[in-house]
Amino acid sequence: MSLLFKNLRVHQVFGANTDVGKTLLTSALVRASATKHERVFYLKPVSTGPMQDADDEHVKRYIGANKDRLHAACLYRFSEPLSPHLAVQLEADKEQTEIPVPSDETFGSAVASHIRQNASGAPSYSHMYVETAGGIHSPSLSGTTQADAYRPLFLPTILIGDSRLGGISSTISAYESLMLRGYIVDCILLFKDEYYRNGEYLAPYFAEKQINVATFDPPPPRHSDPSANFDLTERYYQSLVPPTQEGSIFNVLSHLDACHSRRLEELESMPRRTLDTIWWPFVQHGHVKGEQDVNVIDSAFGDFFSVYNGHRSKRTKKSLLEPQFDGSASWWTQALGHANPALTTAAARAAGRYGHVMFPQATHLPALNLAERLVKDGPGKDWASRAFFSDDGSTGMEIALKMALRAYAIKQSPPLDMANRKELGVLGLKGSYHGDTIGAMDACEEGVYTCEWHNAKGYWFDPPYVGIRKGKVHITVPESIALQSEGSVNGDALQSLSQVYDVKQRLDTPLASVYRTFVSQTLDRLQKKESPALAALVLEPIVLGAGGMIFVDPLFQRILVDLVREAEPSKTLPVIFDEVFVGLYRLGMETSGPLLGVHPDISVHAKILTGGLLPLAVTLASDETFQAFLSENKTDALLHGHSYTAHPVGCEVANETLNMLQKVVCGDEWKEAQERWSGAGDTDSPRVFSLWDQGFVEAISHLAPVKEVMTLGTLLVIKTQDDSGGYRSNSAQALLKPVVAALNEESPNAFGMHFRTLGNVAYFMTSLNSPSKTIRAVEDRIWSALSNAHS
Amino acid sequence: MSLLFKNLRVHQVFGANTDVGKTLLTSALVRASATKHERVFYLKPVSTGPMQDADDEHVKRYIGANKDRLHAACLYRFSEPLSPHLAVQLEADKEQTEIPVPSDETFGSAVASHIRQNASGAPSYSHMYVETAGGIHSPSLSGTTQADAYRPLFLPTILIGDSRLGGISSTISAYESLMLRGYIVDCILLFKDEYYRNGEYLAPYFAEKQINVATFDPPPPRHSDPSANFDLTERYYQSLVPPTQEGSIFNVLSHLDACHSRRLEELESMPRRTLDTIWWPFVQHGHVKGEQDVNVIDSAFGDFFSVYNGHRSKRTKKSLLEPQFDGSASWWTQALGHANPALTTAAARAAGRYGHVMFPQATHLPALNLAERLVKDGPGKDWASRAFFSDDGSTGMEIALKMALRAYAIKQSPPLDMANRKELGVLGLKGSYHGDTIGAMDACEEGVYTCEWHNAKGYWFDPPYVGIRKGKVHITVPESIALQSEGSVNGDALQSLSQVYDVKQRLDTPLASVYRTFVSQTLDRLQKKESPALAALVLEPIVLGAGGMIFVDPLFQRILVDLVREAEPSKTLPVIFDEVFVGLYRLGMETSGPLLGVHPDISVHAKILTGGLLPLAVTLASDETFQAFLSENKTDALLHGHSYTAHPVGCEVANETLNMLQKVVCGDEWKEAQERWSGAGDTDSPRVFSLWDQGFVEAISHLAPVKEVMTLGTLLVIKTQDDSGGYRSNSAQALLKPVVAALNEESPNAFGMHFRTLGNVAYFMTSLNSPSKTIRAVEDRIWSALSNAHS
Repeated sequence: MSLLFKNLRVHQVFGANTDVGKTLLTSALVRASATKHERVFYLKPVSTGPMQDADDEHVKRYIGANKDRLHAACLYRFSEPLSPHLAVQLEADKEQTEIPVPSDETFGSAVASHIRQNASGAPSYSHMYVETAGGIHSPSLSGTTQADAYRPLFLPTILIGDSRLGGISSTISAYESLMLRGYIVDCILLFKDEYYRNGEYLAPYFAEKQINVATFDPPPPRHSDPSANFDLTERYYQSLVPPTQEGSIFNVLSHLDACHSRRLEELESMPRRTLDTIWWPFVQHGHVKGEQDVNVIDSAFGDFFSVYNGHRSKRTKKSLLEPQFDGSASWWTQALGHANPALTTAAARAAGRYGHVMFPQATHLPALNLAERLVKDGPGKDWASRAFFSDDGSTGMEIALKMALRAYAIKQSPPLDMANRKELGVLGLKGSYHGDTIGAMDACEEGVYTCEWHNAKGYWFDPPYVGIRKGKVHITVPESIALQSEGSVNGDALQSLSQVYDVKQRLDTPLASVYRTFVSQTLDRLQKKESPALAALVLEPIVLGAGGMIFVDPLFQRILVDLVREAEPSKTLPVIFDEVFVGLYRLGMETSGPLLGVHPDISVHAKILTGGLLPLAVTLASDETFQAFLSENKTDALLHGHSYTAHPVGCEVANETLNMLQKVVCGDEWKEAQERWSGAGDTDSPRVFSLWDQGFVEAISHLAPVKEVMTLGTLLVIKTQDDSGGYRSNSAQALLKPVVAALNEESPNAFGMHFRTLGNVAYFMTSLNSPSKTIRAVEDRIWSALSNAHS
Repeated sequence: MSLLFKNLRVHQVFGANTDVGKTLLTSALVRASATKHERVFYLKPVSTGPMQDADDEHVKRYIGANKDRLHAACLYRFSEPLSPHLAVQLEADKEQTEIPVPSDETFGSAVASHIRQNASGAPSYSHMYVETAGGIHSPSLSGTTQADAYRPLFLPTILIGDSRLGGISSTISAYESLMLRGYIVDCILLFKDEYYRNGEYLAPYFAEKQINVATFDPPPPRHSDPSANFDLTERYYQSLVPPTQEGSIFNVLSHLDACHSRRLEELESMPRRTLDTIWWPFVQHGHVKGEQDVNVIDSAFGDFFSVYNGHRSKRTKKSLLEPQFDGSASWWTQALGHANPALTTAAARAAGRYGHVMFPQATHLPALNLAERLVKDGPGKDWASRAFFSDDGSTGMEIALKMALRAYAIKQSPPLDMANRKELGVLGLKGSYHGDTIGAMDACEEGVYTCEWHNAKGYWFDPPYVGIRKGKVHITVPESIALQSEGSVNGDALQSLSQVYDVKQRLDTPLASVYRTFVSQTLDRLQKKESPALAALVLEPIVLGAGGMIFVDPLFQRILVDLVREAEPSKTLPVIFDEVFVGLYRLGMETSGPLLGVHPDISVHAKILTGGLLPLAVTLASDETFQAFLSENKTDALLHGHSYTAHPVGCEVANETLNMLQKVVCGDEWKEAQERWSGAGDTDSPRVFSLWDQGFVEAISHLAPVKEVMTLGTLLVIKTQDDSGGYRSNSAQALLKPVVAALNEESPNAFGMHFRTLGNVAYFMTSLNSPSKTIRAVEDRIWSALSNAHS
């Protein structure tokens, strides 16, 4: 919802406190702009207190006298000089009526709409000042503090500092609160005070931060005679805004104009500069045709990026920024929305207490609390004993592999020597992906992601998978397995997703026998071949992510785990669950163990772990795994570590995330989604559910261009009919292209959408706390694109 | 310097603003404590304004009447009601004398000393309240804001909120500023106000953050008659602190006591809990004998950890927290000191503006600015064209290797097929280390760090290296090379480090010829062997870090680079500089290219990149390297990426770091160090220098237990005489054990030291901005340990 216009330069004005001269200095800015510019807009979204003092009188008269080019507006007015959240309540009490308190969204839309309307008719070099009420954290009408309530608009900011005793403190604190929300602060204005001299302190303090501080003579003391007072005030205004168009206020004006121009130039330059300097991950730069292919993200909030569009279409009247739904949850990381203040504060708290501190043989609260939480009351519950930290899913998997290989090697008798350990392989599924470092890649078969040094070490099964076709749940069994079946692979008997994921019930089905026989025979065959000896079972439970969002039949994974554990103790394989993508409620469940009915020996977690803010990974291990590295020899230890292992900022953010997730998954939106899925044909208490609407999912599965769809938790996967191209295919991208562009700006579905495809597979992913309203709007956009392609 | 006592519960009191009732509510707490506890201390480190109002009068009288158990003190008193930084100046002006303004360090020491003295005699369950002056960011005597000035003491905090109009805002902002500095806020106290009702808003707001909010009746209006006023005030105090010992203030007291107890219990429990849950990197848990082996880091500031010592010695009178010098710069990451507020703010700013956002085919300012800075005006200057982001040095090196192997493979004619690409090897040095992921390890020879799947791919030279023995600079040439020399390997001709590092001058020396002949012949021999074909030269320039802090003769590295580039174009090897450890001024220079006189084709940077706050890495590449991945095929792209690639928080912190580094390396401390080294025998403008004192370095090189020392920039390396054990040796750890424990608490060298060893090598590393005073103190401690071992 954030806005930026070429012609209309908008600034919002925050106060370091109440009564610091916000209205007065904003009025002075309005006057100064009016003397210089074609049109000036003065928006006070919320006003509290009686219109009675000289300042207001002046503003009113001045506006009256300059109607042709000066437009003032107030969206919500209250007569009590109270914090807006109380003023609106009081008004309601007085009127004995229910005044509906506008939500932050309604409020934000009203302000945005007002700005947009005025911008559309504004001649070049118009100005708008949006004056907030009270201090920066004074509650808005809904009770959210203003710094938070205005954040989605992301307007450049003028901070009015406090010139009184204590004002240095309140000005710096207010600035820091604005920083915590990412605001661009263009300047700080305050009154001069010869005794407290706050400006003298603040000017160099903020110069260090490249922020201008300007000071102004304070207003004259109030005169007891109203008319004399009016004249005094008028004279004061004229001294602030002299007809010569010189002095501080005009310098500020020039500075604000320069900031606006610089911001426009900066955004305009970003695509070119990016194409000149950046080497993107997973991007064929040969396909990037020009500046229009660069997605310029100016800021982000909640489920949306705010992207620049000036390099894609010439816009003079419309906003150069537009909302874009983050349809891949920023590569599967987002859980609580972009720029979540609670996560920012958690990061700041740990940075302020520790920075980063050395971890080997040390401890600190953020890491310890996180480890305990994960091991004892999280995905490691009931099986894990230790947490080993690293930086990302790929490093977490390298650690997991080192753990598993060692655990297997030393339980052989005699323990394998180093030469034999190099030859160990893993058992897995075709289409697996565990990250891009060589070790993580070596645990996968050869494929599109593998590279020069890749050396596939192991054996990978072609997995059966789950999907919804023409409204029906199907299990597709690969030919290799089907050949064994004698007609018993019929997945049609499974009416609902909950039945598919009721693994325990399915253990006695004919299909289970087919799987069991097939896997056993394959393992026997592999064992006879001897090389490479298999030393671990490595699975992405439930969904193979980067390999094509394949929903593996959970029964097959369960049987794999059971069978590798049935051997004599020295031959059982350690089981690694790579839950980097699927874990921590991405698919609606904290971890996949309970669903599959088996726990791993080692599991890896990342992405959502930090709520989507910054890199951190953890590898959880059973006690048996840990014991495999214990000895009196230093060199037997797990000699793996990254400099920032268990960095306090990441751990503290993860702790905050886990606390917040608990609330989200027990909250109304999740309950409603669960009820929708159980009400719509699933069992009373569904084992699985989705934040996506069941009716929508089934409906799109009937559309002609769609081969199959599937959903769990936050994930929606749409496979197009074009099955040929695999990762190289462009069909999903082409089919869904209509959702990319933003629509007419005033519709609630106005946003554009950013999404990723994997060849002929398109997927969409929400945050864990995405409002259902947003998800419904996204569904509408997808539906339009698919059904229009259909017709 | 942070303090925590078993018997004496200390809280500091910050105000959300001036005039919010800080003194009054602190006095009430003092009174309440006095009625309950054996002894109460009321410390007002700085007091400004006349002692005249009723509050102060009451405090004075109450203290007078309770002398036996109530001790009040003020360290700096000024009569003007001004911000302390102005009050101290005004005093100086009045007295016409130079009143020396105490530095933050002096001020902190005075407060700490006062607390320590009183704690030493305090009976159990004594209390101390430390009342700050003005608002939380009001300037201290030195001008630093109070929130920053008190930060090293890291005392648990009571925040006095603001009950007036606007007070919600100032209270929340003040709290956020405290968070940014990591403070533990135990509760918020404020007056009730029936009209503004701030408490009603703040209580649930802070309950979400697990912070208690307590409200109190406001003081009565001032009576014009002083005596009546006194009585009124006394009655008010008695209502706040009734003899029944019931009511809000006593609830607060219990809460503060509970917080104190919980903090003690938490610290006491941490070693045990850590031993039960954490799997440390690079630690043989079999060597960890018990709780005393766990370093409990409670917080950190500047160059010091604040560590808990209660599990190592029983302390009732002394502080349970003690300073510990971070002697490995937290695994080589620290550049600007722990908990640097500028880095915290940078992290918060980016988290608030973006959170994390998707990077492929996208751009955002923090990443773009950082890429440009690194490529055009940083280590990539004059050669790099692109920046590829990742998470740590290890992933950065995996990317570098993928780049180099591809660049080599496709310039062969015909380009190598995939099978041949798997067999490519690298050329490097024995003792190299590039990280712990398998690909990075495969670029190193077999060694202590390598593991199950390691497969050394390449050839590694035994490198000549530089060291100082008995005050003289030596180059130790390995036997393999020396055999070729016919007497020309005499390094003694080099008198100073600057001569050793004047690579250009040395290119014509006999030693250069020896190196050149040896390397050429080896390369010829390797080429004849054919397998593995070498496809890249991979170097840690100047110093091999984890391999034993080996200062490689830079001449040898230069000649290696020259020779691999002398072949016909298709056979030249891409050169990778792994500058993860050595770069960004760790060794005094931004990058090693200018010193060696050659640029790489690919370089990797991490660690210092974020100033030591959180993980981020970047791989820089030449345009030729980038071109090797361009095509019309998606699968030819560099298909490598981590979810948090170019995360805005990391990039913004890196940008802030690079700005700050520029100031540090041009600052006085660095200039003085450079002058010391040039004055002490080196050339006028030394090519290399150290923050360690040249006299000290030479002196310890003469000591009996020391075999060799070496230093550059922030790094000091001490090799013990025990050469046998290598990585398994414990000799360096044993020799320097005396520096571990903290000394007598009142000495300036009181701190303990945390340092790391690599077998018989001990190393010490400062931040880039460590004050020379601290470094001298560290040198003293090292000197004592080594010279006592000597005697």
